Formats: sequence, C-alpha cells, structure tokens
Amino acid sequence: MGPDPAVAAVRLAVRRVLADLPAGSMALAACSGGADSLALAGALAFEAPRAGLHAGGITIDHGLQDGSGARADAVVRTLADLGLDPAGSIAVTVDGEGGMENAARNARYAALDEAADRLGAAAVLLGHTRDDQAETVLLGLARGSGTRSLAGMPAALRRSSARGEVLYLRPLLELDRATMRRACLAMGLEPWDDPHNDDPAYTRVRVRHQALPVLEATIGPGVAKALARTAQMLRDDADALDDLAARAYEELRSTEDGHGLALSVDGLEELHRAVRTRVLRMAAVKAGSPPGTLAAVHVDAMDRLVTAWHGQRHVDLPGGLRAFRRYGRLLFGPV
Amino acid sequence: MGPDPAVAAVRLAVRRVLADLPAGSMALAACSGGADSLALAGALAFEAPRAGLHAGGITIDHGLQDGSGARADAVVRTLADLGLDPAGSIAVTVDGEGGMENAARNARYAALDEAADRLGAAAVLLGHTRDDQAETVLLGLARGSGTRSLAGMPAALRRSSARGEVLYLRPLLELDRATMRRACLAMGLEPWDDPHNDDPAYTRVRVRHQALPVLEATIGPGVAKALARTAQMLRDDADALDDLAARAYEELRSTEDGHGLALSVDGLEELHRAVRTRVLRMAAVKAGSPPGTLAAVHVDAMDRLVTAWHGQRHVDLPGGLRAFRRYGRLLFGPV
Repeated sequence: MGPDPAVAAVRLAVRRVLADLPAGSMALAACSGGADSLALAGALAFEAPRAGLHAGGITIDHGLQDGSGARADAVVRTLADLGLDPAGSIAVTVDGEGGMENAARNARYAALDEAADRLGAAAVLLGHTRDDQAETVLLGLARGSGTRSLAGMPAALRRSSARGEVLYLRPLLELDRATMRRACLAMGLEPWDDPHNDDPAYTRVRVRHQALPVLEATIGPGVAKALARTAQMLRDDADALDDLAARAYEELRSTEDGHGLALSVDGLEELHRAVRTRVLRMAAVKAGSPPGTLAAVHVDAMDRLVTAWHGQRHVDLPGGLRAFRRYGRLLFGPV
Repeated sequence: MGPDPAVAAVRLAVRRVLADLPAGSMALAACSGGADSLALAGALAFEAPRAGLHAGGITIDHGLQDGSGARADAVVRTLADLGLDPAGSIAVTVDGEGGMENAARNARYAALDEAADRLGAAAVLLGHTRDDQAETVLLGLARGSGTRSLAGMPAALRRSSARGEVLYLRPLLELDRATMRRACLAMGLEPWDDPHNDDPAYTRVRVRHQALPVLEATIGPGVAKALARTAQMLRDDADALDDLAARAYEELRSTEDGHGLALSVDGLEELHRAVRTRVLRMAAVKAGSPPGTLAAVHVDAMDRLVTAWHGQRHVDLPGGLRAFRRYGRLLFGPV
C-alpha cells in the first residue's frame, strides 16, 4: 500500500525541486509549525536521503507572542524527530518598521539567509501553497500596482546574502492548504494553528477567511487555482517586459551633454507603451527618484512628455527631481 | 453657477472623446435606459452641438422581458426629449446560443453595427463605467485565462461591419456608477433599473452585489478603482506582448519542407517565455486548432517540446492536430 495521496503529492512536489540541487548538498525547510510548512518538513525528511541530500529544519521565533520560545522549542523537537539534522530555532527581533507583517517577514528572511550561509545550504524550502499565492495576487490586485505585484510569489528566488546568495524554493505553490492538513494527519504530525492566522486585524487574514470564500461562492469554485495560474502567466509577462525595458533603457540613454541622464525621445516613441512606461520608471529611479513613492501618475505624466508633447515645461518627480524635454531628449535633473 | 459636479464630470469625459471625431460627423449613444447610459446620452446631447457634431441615440429591445417594447418606446421618448436625433429603438432576437448574456451581447452589437452603418455614424458611445470594468476584470481573473482577459474592456474598439468598421468608445471607464446616478438626478432624468441587474442567477450580478462589496470591506475602499487601473496596465502589457509575438512568428515560421507550418526551435528558444508561449498558441491556431479549446496545458506541452526536449514523440492538440519536433524545427500536422 502506497502513502496517503496527500502525502504522496507533497513528497512528489518536494522531490521535483530536490532533483535540481547538487548531490550531497543540504536543503533546509523553514518551518513555522503550521500545517503547510510542517508537511513540507515531513516530505523533505523523507525525500532528501533518497535524493542523496542532507536535510535540516529551521524555525524562527519572532518573539511576538507569549510563549513563542516554548513554541519554537516544540517545533525544533518535531523537526528533530522527523530526522532533520540540524534542527534549530533562531530568535529574531521585529522592530515593526514598515508595518508588523512586513517587519516580521524582513527579520525572518534575514535570519534564514544567515542560517543558510552558516550551514552552507544549497536551498531553503518555503511552505507557501496555492492558497497563499491566491491571497497574494488578490492583495496585489487591490493595490492596483501593476503586473509585477500581481505575479505573486516566485517558485524560485535568489536573495543576495553576506556570503553570496541564498536560493529559496517554494515547491508547494501548486498544492492547496487542505492537502497540507491531510498530509500532516497522515504523517502523524500535529500542526500548530498560529492565532495570527485568524486575526482579522491582518488584511491577509480577511482576504483568506472572507474575500476568497465569497469569490468562490459568487464566481465559482476554483478561484484560488485560477488566481495562482494567473500569477504564473503574469510573472512570465513581467519578466519579458522588464527585460525588454532594461535593454531599451541601455540603448536609449546617454549622458554626453552634461545632464545626469538623457533618453532619446524618438527612441522612446517607437517603443510599445508597456515597455516605454517601464523605461521611464527605470530612468526616474536611476536618476534618484525613490521607487516607493514614484507612482503611476508620475509615469503617465512623463509618458505625455514623450507622446503628447505640446510644450509642457516639466514633470516634478518625488525625490526633488524633475523630468523635462529638450531638443529631442528627455532629461532628468534636480528641481 | 456651473452644472452639478457629477454632470460636469460626465460631460467632460464625453467632450474628450468627441474631440477626436471628424467635424460634422454623428455620434450615437447606445442607451438601455439605465443610469449609466442615460447619463451618457444626456451628456452627449449637451456636448455634441458644442463640438460641431450630430448626436443620436439608440436603444435595443432584446425582447427578453414582458413589456420590453413599451420600455424601449419610453427610452426613445427620453432620448428624443434630450434632443438626440435620430432617436430610435431596434428589436433583436436573442437565440441564447453560448449562454443568454453572451447571446444578448452579440445580438446587441450586431444591431448597433447595423445602425451605425445605416446612419453613417463616426462612433457609438457605450456607458460602461469603472465599476463595470472592475467586474469584468474579476470575472476574467476567476477564469485564470491570461493577461488579455484581465485587461477588461477597451476604451476604444473598432469592430468590422458590413460597410467597413464601427468605432465603439467608452468615455465613462474612469467614472463610477454612483456619479452616473447623481448626474441623472441633476439632469432630471429618471433611470430605469433593469431587474436583470439584480438577478443573482447572473455571475456578473453576484460579482457586483456580493464579491466587490466584500473585497472593499476586507481589502479596503478603492478596490474597483484599483481593478480598473490594473486592467489598463495589463492591456498595455498584452498589446506589447501580442505584437512582439506576431513579429516573432513571422520571423520564425517557414513552410519550405512541405509541412503546413514549421517554426525554428533555436529561434523559439531565444524568446522570452511570455512571447514564446504566445507564438506557439498563434502557430497552433493558424495550423487549425480551434482557439476556444486550445488550453494552457497544450501550450505548456508545446513549450516543453522546445525547452525541455528529451525525445517526446508529439503533442496532441484540439482539432485533430499534433505538434512535433524534427531536425531543429517544430512542425504542425494532422494526427
């Protein structure tokens, strides 16, 4: 008799990503103790030796709840019981900068970077599922902030770290959360339900428990799957357009006339709008405008300097910068 | 004292699109009698003479509800009272093919095409608002069917017709439905509330009355605006990528070896995935695969013939077609 189908699905997903890692290297599971990352850790413990790899597990103690240290110790014991070696916890300090969720994420990744460096791990595996991806897409959609934010979380991502870079993999992005719960049950693992995951103070929690169920009910089942599939397609689109924009930027820019940065208006006009707006955004950022505050309204105004020119004086940009048009070129300079 | 701000907003939006029409030509408002298209008709009647244009109004009687003929007559009287000339109704037969909403839309546009041809109208104005756009994006998102279906409704579209083509314009895509109601009230126009617009048997109605309000409540106000902005950005992306794919297709295709269609594998490999998958889809459709049944799973399998080749025999496609790889080329032929 084979394993439970949920266990088999998680193992298969993990096996696929392990196949690309160098023989004899180490893979780390990042595990909160929740069902998703616990199923991930269980599958990694099973698959890694069969793939000729070492497997370890790390849990992060964010120190944000009473008893979080004891919780982390319990997760470490579970990871060790699964046969993950090393199995350890790292306590981090979350300063709350940029919002609590954001600060916790930053602290978590910094600790994982450091652990991967220290252990020489070839990859860190993350337990995000299709449901997490669907939530991410909906959150990005609601911000209206463009293709990249709709593209959700990548299945593979390299983050630069102190010793070079760390490879993060998300093998579970095509599986749903219900499968993770079933897999834990079948593997005899008891997931911990983080009360934060049910706290409606978090937008993501409201999206999970209110928005997605209503979308499923009104539009039809399979919305989460459709959102995740959409994310993958939009990621491909964003990759292509960002790359085309980077090439166009290199081709059109010049600095020869003493100004910080200049782009050929003729060259910009020939680009597709999707590429041109990306080039304009890129140029403004390189000229010193902070990417976080440079908005669509600024990019649109720069675009009108190129495509709807009727003698506009200049466009003021965040960061004490302005864009203006002169002798067939778009220039960037201080206010 | 100027007009009510809602009236001013609708008029401004209409004035902007009229500015691009030839002097002395005619613009038609398509009007259901609902608040959105009634506000549109009122604004067109005001702005057209000031822009040196003629303005008419058309309502479509779909014959789907008791008393629809009398309703259409009432709308025609309102349009005529506004000063639109001609003001008329066209009765259409909705056969229900492809679903009732779809069939009604097809019959409506065919009748509008015909009316525009007959009257020599330079443009037909449609009353879709930002809220309609947000609903369209959510519906497309739920289908998971790619960038183009997320791009919503275009602000301008040319449809080919018996006498050439008809230009459809949607001037109200940046305004919300509430503004249309206020504008009607201020203009003394009484909108008709189509009971179909509240019938939860329609997915769009459920999206409007359930999904969007819950998204606003969970994610924050401004979701409809964000969805509409997203649609515009994704439309630019889709336009760019579709055009790049069409060029790449022309560059890579050949028919020299007696097969219906062949694409260079080396050339395909060099493309970004977002462009390559579009080229593959385009080639399969040109080779005879019906676009409606050609799915992402087929395109992915073709993509693996190019990028993950390990001797696969062929990929079966809808329409009795298969794609296979031979001597560095991707070929399409009958099963």
